[in-house]
Amino acid sequence: MKFIAYAQGGCCSVGELSPAGDAIYPIRVDSEAVGVLPLVIAAADGGRLPQGDRSASIPLDDVSVRAPIPRPRRNIFCVGKNYFDHAHEFARSGFDSSAAAGAVPGSPIIFSKVPECVIADGEDVVIDPAVTAAVDYEAELAVIIGRGGRGISKASAMDHVWGYTIVNDVTARDLQGRHKQWLIGKSLDTFCPMGPVAVTADELDLQQTGVRCYVNGELRQNAMVSQLIFDIPTLIETLSSGITLYPGDVIATGTPAGVGIGFDPPRYLQVGDEVTVEIDGIGRLHNRFAAIDRHQEG
Amino acid sequence: MKFIAYAQGGCCSVGELSPAGDAIYPIRVDSEAVGVLPLVIAAADGGRLPQGDRSASIPLDDVSVRAPIPRPRRNIFCVGKNYFDHAHEFARSGFDSSAAAGAVPGSPIIFSKVPECVIADGEDVVIDPAVTAAVDYEAELAVIIGRGGRGISKASAMDHVWGYTIVNDVTARDLQGRHKQWLIGKSLDTFCPMGPVAVTADELDLQQTGVRCYVNGELRQNAMVSQLIFDIPTLIETLSSGITLYPGDVIATGTPAGVGIGFDPPRYLQVGDEVTVEIDGIGRLHNRFAAIDRHQEG
Repeated sequence: MKFIAYAQGGCCSVGELSPAGDAIYPIRVDSEAVGVLPLVIAAADGGRLPQGDRSASIPLDDVSVRAPIPRPRRNIFCVGKNYFDHAHEFARSGFDSSAAAGAVPGSPIIFSKVPECVIADGEDVVIDPAVTAAVDYEAELAVIIGRGGRGISKASAMDHVWGYTIVNDVTARDLQGRHKQWLIGKSLDTFCPMGPVAVTADELDLQQTGVRCYVNGELRQNAMVSQLIFDIPTLIETLSSGITLYPGDVIATGTPAGVGIGFDPPRYLQVGDEVTVEIDGIGRLHNRFAAIDRHQEG
Repeated sequence: MKFIAYAQGGCCSVGELSPAGDAIYPIRVDSEAVGVLPLVIAAADGGRLPQGDRSASIPLDDVSVRAPIPRPRRNIFCVGKNYFDHAHEFARSGFDSSAAAGAVPGSPIIFSKVPECVIADGEDVVIDPAVTAAVDYEAELAVIIGRGGRGISKASAMDHVWGYTIVNDVTARDLQGRHKQWLIGKSLDTFCPMGPVAVTADELDLQQTGVRCYVNGELRQNAMVSQLIFDIPTLIETLSSGITLYPGDVIATGTPAGVGIGFDPPRYLQVGDEVTVEIDGIGRLHNRFAAIDRHQEG
């Protein structure tokens, strides 16, 4: 099943995407419309997922799409340097404050993005030239945790995966380097496009899932999820060994080679650029990079 | 004013601590008991703080104390290597994955702890020997944001500080080193004692505020907040330049020299150790370090 979060007339809801991808079947749990995907996930814990109401179908064009988890319960867990070719291109760039220990990590590198930087498919990523001059894209498969837990083994890890979505782990490379720890460079407002949908785990064959990224239509990243250095069970075992995971937690699994900083000279994103992240079985996450509007600052 | 969060008969509330420190005056906003400190903060935005109800005074001994912000809205922002002597002791330890660039950072190092690792004064920090063999303490002054915002200048930063509390930024040094980015080593369950109270900004003179840490009664850390490399206005300006801050955000400002890893050999915490963090004008945050109870694992 594909789930989509949407707003219609001010209300926020979750629905099932129709097979043709052009309509939404609203989801109700105990007769109540469900506004947040984690509630759907929690409602399904140990049981059957609620189905969308086909009799109440809404054309996709009539709603505005929201990110599947528009405001995660805590920062998004993210994995650094989790594809070999990307680990090497990043080490070569000279921006990697942890490269002294070798390009390819011996253990997963985990950092976070603040929940409030999540935006939806079609919304603009905002570039503030007073803050960064080195905005980069990172196409990533994101895992959505279903059943929480602590001390989850690799063998049982996939039982805790509710499903997947797409994340563009937008990064200010200059801030990532300057502050050593990556939180600031990864968490600027609007720097986490997510969506357009979330799919249940059964929708993907991780051995056959390709991740691609296009900048203004030019293919920049192209890899298979099966090439992850630390696979999804390893990431869940590592994270949960001492940190309890909760339903709705999001883990962005890392990006393949081909990011802007991997080029010489680097090819950072500029105002007007359009980035599309495509993952087989999920869809296409498309966002334009726009200039900041100083009049909208609070 | 000193605020304290407490539970009595299952209910969670916020109150004003009596001048003698032995009673709580419950706080109501619009006649409703307030369960979460950020609501008090939000209610006071631009106005006067709600006062506790002296006629409904509750003896402190009749309640269980909770952390002032028991579940922050997002990960706690933390600052690394923000006192000179600590920056040097940490670099010497060899555990610092970012030390290649020099012991003392040129810009604030910002990482995070997950909200769910917060515990209260008097609760146990749990050591799991299967996860870490290098548990360390870090006494820190934590800033609580009042009015949110983005692009906050140093000059106006203190207008955005609601108040302060104490945090023990408990750290698994082995995981901090192994994973390069510090999130995992900083976020283990129970690794963020906070409290016992939160005080409004007017209660502290930052030029005269001492931070001390005792392990089993032995003084290990002893510094003045005025010795911060990056002061509070700088931290707020840096964070908010591209990341919108919200009421109730917590920023742990960094720890002085004297942590366990600064000794040769390191003096890590063991089961049964008791750590007290003391900050002038706030109080004493006391926690015991206990062995994990496997029967309680979920």
